[in-house]
Amino acid sequence: MNHKIRLGILGGGGDSLIGVVHRIAAHMFDYYQIVGGCFNPNPDENKKFAAHIGIPAARVYSSFDVLIEEELKLSKEERMQVVSILTPNFLHFPMAKKLLENGFNIICEKPLTTSHAEALELQAIQDQKQVVFAVTYTYTGYPMVRQMKQMIADGAIGAVQKVDLQYYQGWINPVIHHAEQRKSVWRLDPEKGGISCCIGDIGTHAFDMLEYATNMRVKTILADLNYRYPDNEMDVDGTILVRFSDYCKGVLRVSQIATAEENNFTVQIYGEKGSLKWAQENPNYLNFLQEGKPQQQLKPGHDYLSRFSLEGTKLPPGHPEGLFDAMGNIYSGVAKAILGQDFINGAYPDLEEGVRGMLFIEKVIESHKNGNVWVNL
Amino acid sequence: MNHKIRLGILGGGGDSLIGVVHRIAAHMFDYYQIVGGCFNPNPDENKKFAAHIGIPAARVYSSFDVLIEEELKLSKEERMQVVSILTPNFLHFPMAKKLLENGFNIICEKPLTTSHAEALELQAIQDQKQVVFAVTYTYTGYPMVRQMKQMIADGAIGAVQKVDLQYYQGWINPVIHHAEQRKSVWRLDPEKGGISCCIGDIGTHAFDMLEYATNMRVKTILADLNYRYPDNEMDVDGTILVRFSDYCKGVLRVSQIATAEENNFTVQIYGEKGSLKWAQENPNYLNFLQEGKPQQQLKPGHDYLSRFSLEGTKLPPGHPEGLFDAMGNIYSGVAKAILGQDFINGAYPDLEEGVRGMLFIEKVIESHKNGNVWVNL
Amino acid sequence: MNHKIRLGILGGGGDSLIGVVHRIAAHMFDYYQIVGGCFNPNPDENKKFAAHIGIPAARVYSSFDVLIEEELKLSKEERMQVVSILTPNFLHFPMAKKLLENGFNIICEKPLTTSHAEALELQAIQDQKQVVFAVTYTYTGYPMVRQMKQMIADGAIGAVQKVDLQYYQGWINPVIHHAEQRKSVWRLDPEKGGISCCIGDIGTHAFDMLEYATNMRVKTILADLNYRYPDNEMDVDGTILVRFSDYCKGVLRVSQIATAEENNFTVQIYGEKGSLKWAQENPNYLNFLQEGKPQQQLKPGHDYLSRFSLEGTKLPPGHPEGLFDAMGNIYSGVAKAILGQDFINGAYPDLEEGVRGMLFIEKVIESHKNGNVWVNL
Amino acid sequence: MNHKIRLGILGGGGDSLIGVVHRIAAHMFDYYQIVGGCFNPNPDENKKFAAHIGIPAARVYSSFDVLIEEELKLSKEERMQVVSILTPNFLHFPMAKKLLENGFNIICEKPLTTSHAEALELQAIQDQKQVVFAVTYTYTGYPMVRQMKQMIADGAIGAVQKVDLQYYQGWINPVIHHAEQRKSVWRLDPEKGGISCCIGDIGTHAFDMLEYATNMRVKTILADLNYRYPDNEMDVDGTILVRFSDYCKGVLRVSQIATAEENNFTVQIYGEKGSLKWAQENPNYLNFLQEGKPQQQLKPGHDYLSRFSLEGTKLPPGHPEGLFDAMGNIYSGVAKAILGQDFINGAYPDLEEGVRGMLFIEKVIESHKNGNVWVNL
Repeated sequence: MNHKIRLGILGGGGDSLIGVVHRIAAHMFDYYQIVGGCFNPNPDENKKFAAHIGIPAARVYSSFDVLIEEELKLSKEERMQVVSILTPNFLHFPMAKKLLENGFNIICEKPLTTSHAEALELQAIQDQKQVVFAVTYTYTGYPMVRQMKQMIADGAIGAVQKVDLQYYQGWINPVIHHAEQRKSVWRLDPEKGGISCCIGDIGTHAFDMLEYATNMRVKTILADLNYRYPDNEMDVDGTILVRFSDYCKGVLRVSQIATAEENNFTVQIYGEKGSLKWAQENPNYLNFLQEGKPQQQLKPGHDYLSRFSLEGTKLPPGHPEGLFDAMGNIYSGVAKAILGQDFINGAYPDLEEGVRGMLFIEKVIESHKNGNVWVNL
Repeated sequence: MNHKIRLGILGGGGDSLIGVVHRIAAHMFDYYQIVGGCFNPNPDENKKFAAHIGIPAARVYSSFDVLIEEELKLSKEERMQVVSILTPNFLHFPMAKKLLENGFNIICEKPLTTSHAEALELQAIQDQKQVVFAVTYTYTGYPMVRQMKQMIADGAIGAVQKVDLQYYQGWINPVIHHAEQRKSVWRLDPEKGGISCCIGDIGTHAFDMLEYATNMRVKTILADLNYRYPDNEMDVDGTILVRFSDYCKGVLRVSQIATAEENNFTVQIYGEKGSLKWAQENPNYLNFLQEGKPQQQLKPGHDYLSRFSLEGTKLPPGHPEGLFDAMGNIYSGVAKAILGQDFINGAYPDLEEGVRGMLFIEKVIESHKNGNVWVNL
Repeated sequence: MNHKIRLGILGGGGDSLIGVVHRIAAHMFDYYQIVGGCFNPNPDENKKFAAHIGIPAARVYSSFDVLIEEELKLSKEERMQVVSILTPNFLHFPMAKKLLENGFNIICEKPLTTSHAEALELQAIQDQKQVVFAVTYTYTGYPMVRQMKQMIADGAIGAVQKVDLQYYQGWINPVIHHAEQRKSVWRLDPEKGGISCCIGDIGTHAFDMLEYATNMRVKTILADLNYRYPDNEMDVDGTILVRFSDYCKGVLRVSQIATAEENNFTVQIYGEKGSLKWAQENPNYLNFLQEGKPQQQLKPGHDYLSRFSLEGTKLPPGHPEGLFDAMGNIYSGVAKAILGQDFINGAYPDLEEGVRGMLFIEKVIESHKNGNVWVNL
Repeated sequence: MNHKIRLGILGGGGDSLIGVVHRIAAHMFDYYQIVGGCFNPNPDENKKFAAHIGIPAARVYSSFDVLIEEELKLSKEERMQVVSILTPNFLHFPMAKKLLENGFNIICEKPLTTSHAEALELQAIQDQKQVVFAVTYTYTGYPMVRQMKQMIADGAIGAVQKVDLQYYQGWINPVIHHAEQRKSVWRLDPEKGGISCCIGDIGTHAFDMLEYATNMRVKTILADLNYRYPDNEMDVDGTILVRFSDYCKGVLRVSQIATAEENNFTVQIYGEKGSLKWAQENPNYLNFLQEGKPQQQLKPGHDYLSRFSLEGTKLPPGHPEGLFDAMGNIYSGVAKAILGQDFINGAYPDLEEGVRGMLFIEKVIESHKNGNVWVNL
């Protein structure tokens, strides 16, 4: 008999990259079996894709409503234990709400919802249900990010006094300079993308990482965004001053017009005793700077690392792991939570992180629209 | 109905790392389903592990002989189409031989066998069977290695005139200096490890990469090995001069006593027009040097890459992939070969590469034992 | 007969590092001979140091007033042609003013003066005199910085749309957390350091580099500074939002409490067609990113570089040059200007750059003190 | 009165790069004044150049014979104390010999002579004279090379067990493939270049560095060279196996046809406890690897460095120094020796290093010509 956790998936069919990432992650630690889902709104595509990935037809559902209805008819030993939501953003909220209400554990792509109000509504429901709810800020799954979080918590760099995160991409640059093209990109269309493009898409990653790594909460922000053309209603670039307190400050820098940058996300945290630096494009290196000592470079899989970091590495040192492994670690954290196993706080980004992300987006836009002023979070 | 390729696995149970790598690779492109295998010689462990990874008990076999016997009873539509051999090295030959004789496609870990003679015997059988036989030199699966191979084939660097490959690890250093410890490591025991430790384990990777990347065959070699202590019968370090011709020369440098190195495998190929440089620990970068031009850094997923390289990348640029993805690409190549799909030469390392590897090991030892003299390959 | 330019030096005696830098720079291209100066306010130290560096006693002066007085008595063929001012900041203005009024060419360390008003006064005088006036923003002398400036001027990256400069040091961190120590550092004392520590010391370098590299003028800024402790009146860290226009924005980030950072000054300029990235600690690399092409790494001394860059490199590619060479290039630019030789605009940072720097400091403090608001430059 | 060391220079006039390097180095620490020399065999060029660099006509000599003759007429307080030999290689021997015989201290460019026999003759003379004799293996002057030497001497990495040095350039590649061009390059002409091109030019640097850094002597070598074309009598590439003992081995790899490489000289020294890695193109970083610990990156100017390393750095950490500074440190070492000041062994490469270099060249050629056999050093 198969003891794996029964996973359902909403979305992620066809050529969806995020679908690939979640499926590989689900397989990585042998915790999950994908038992069903609704992968595509088109019925034929849905069935075809399900067959392609080896899902029996009986549990390929035509919609998420049908999925919930049918799964609830199954015994608890058969029913999906957790559902991953990989659909377009505006569907996250109705799906998550109904799944929550019916007691399913949830893994939801970011951004959690389309507004902070929706996010708070989900949180209110979850407060009454005993379910696991993960929001897949994937980068928190990297072993060296977890090491960074642990070291800061352990006081390795002393009290944090300055933070600096950068998330630079260039993919909007070839689009933004052509009036027709910039109208045709869904992320630049407020109808589809909500109130923000760049901040919503990648700014939230940077913000989540900041609070995740430091184990602290940002108090107030001041944002300056760039919309590049008068007819472009969605931000494509921004700099956000942040303060944890009057004497602990920093900056988040995000852009999608940083021409020819790929996915250049970097973290620099400066404490009173030392500093930590990490870069997503070379995720297997964590640089540790200390006063008057040689800079140290920490790498995955070594005994000198924390248990939290080591659990996320499958291979010996020097064998590179990547983004799939980061997501695999988040799935692993969710599995342990579902199974009631001992696990470390931060092993998956939880609903509160999703809620904070939505708050952040709204407050950044507010700060900018009001003339680049300080706004409390 | 499930159209995935039916995969069986020999070995790889328990905490086996190589088992993890192959299972993740098998899942990556949705080509395979693992339908059965014999994962562990201990019957209880075997069953327990099979259940852990979700294999139905009916196809958990007590030995590879039983596996073959029982699978042959199944219809062609049910039977395993390919079997992965992940057992200790000395079992590769008998398993591969019997599987070959019975018409199974094979994915075999390296080194192929324990001697060149055995390897030739496998090749003789395969010459008469129409099966796919892959030897998992994993590093050939990296997208930027494939790009390197393609660029050299396309003449991007002109005729190759010098090659330099390094494969430095340090893991034997803490063992080798203690007489008792060095006797207790199986790789340092000729009974278990065969005629070579360092050359057999990682030298073959370097040699295979050299011939894979350049699309050329080494003609003659001269080896100098280090055994470090008089009572240590197995090489732990070596430098091997290689010649493709009188005017195209190079060197392979391998070590397992390069203290504190992790898995530092680098490739430098110099042609008459340009050069290519790649490093396994940062596999997503390929450096292209040309006379009088700025050095270029190629990265996965870009349109400027060859189709061969692009097929091996699932994520957009800037999202790091790693060793699992390299193995996934080899599994993908095997799948395409089994399915008779169009695929590019080099999409998986074939039996001939396995045979060359065994020849290389024996000739290196011969060169060294005879006083560091030239030996033809 | 010696045709070298006759150089006098004010300050830079004893163990002064800046003295070493200027003397080496003066010798680098065989343009200058140091003929005299006043190196130290202490008469004995002054004489001793002058002897140490081989200056004849006749032209070792007890003060800068005496220097001017005595040099004016010499014939034009004997008189110092240019004087370098390396004294503490508050002396720059009176020295530069009197030298200007008496027609000497000047090389002055940064910051130019202690206030924008003083700087404007110098500029008013220079407008009436035909002298060369250089302000030694040393980093503008690096060959790859000059290449960056030239490429942007030539349109290699298209219209600039985003800028991001970082100047992070950590040297104040071990001082700032001890109430007594932070009172004893001159840079943290407004009496000696003026209105700013971090912005005045290194923020001006970043600001100058921004305008130097882009060939553009910043229009408006918004600054957030960190003073770290209530009793510390001088900024030790800051983030400054900058705008060239409504659609061309960016950020300067400077800190002296970025713990254990050395002199981590980086420049990232993003244009509509491509981007350029440079880092002071590895000054011999300029990264050029373009849409859809491999990243290029430009290095000094190659034919593919501009004449302006090539003039600043003495050695063949691969032979590292450093900070002395950057200063040497500025001295070379000044020499060519004095000799009336053909030279490229930007070959030395001129008085206007010094004036802009003083304006920047005052406006940053103004923005911060007024509650982090936009201020025009 | 001027107390600087009186330096004469032979060669280095006109556009000579090596002339620039030595003059800047001489000025760096304020130890020397250049008082005269013979810079060019052409009398007019000689005078013109001397005037250009500010040398009084009285001590501009028409030949080195005249220089010695005239200088000996001067009082000891006027006479040159040390002479730098920067002429073509074949002149090193006669010049050094006569200078030695007349009691001058000498700084001589490498290679020391054109044969080992000549080198031994110089050594025999020096054994009877009390003079300082430096051979400018420039790279030994880098602060991080000195740190490496010191750390190995201090046992930081334990007993050395493996060494690997690479010196790859590409400048001969564009020449070698054209029959006419390869005949026109002096280094490829045995009449002018002696018995070796690549080994003599850069192989000696690698060999010297190996013995310098490890404080050990190579016992025996086996060389394989590449001459690339049958009509090319001079080596352009080579790999040299080296042994310090039966259990301490390594390899030197040198090439001038490593296409598009600039001056890629790297050092990797592996000991029983740790390892050290350094690269000439980024000379301000020394990587220190230890079993089970994070890799450390040492940089110049820090208190954690040895006194020997610190003496070679003028600027604070993070301000890059380069090749001129390396040569400056050698000149500084020579100055201290001449002045009888306390100095550290290894502060300049001495005559014995020059002699070893000549032996190395001859033995490499011998090993190769005899069929790649072991030859004792």
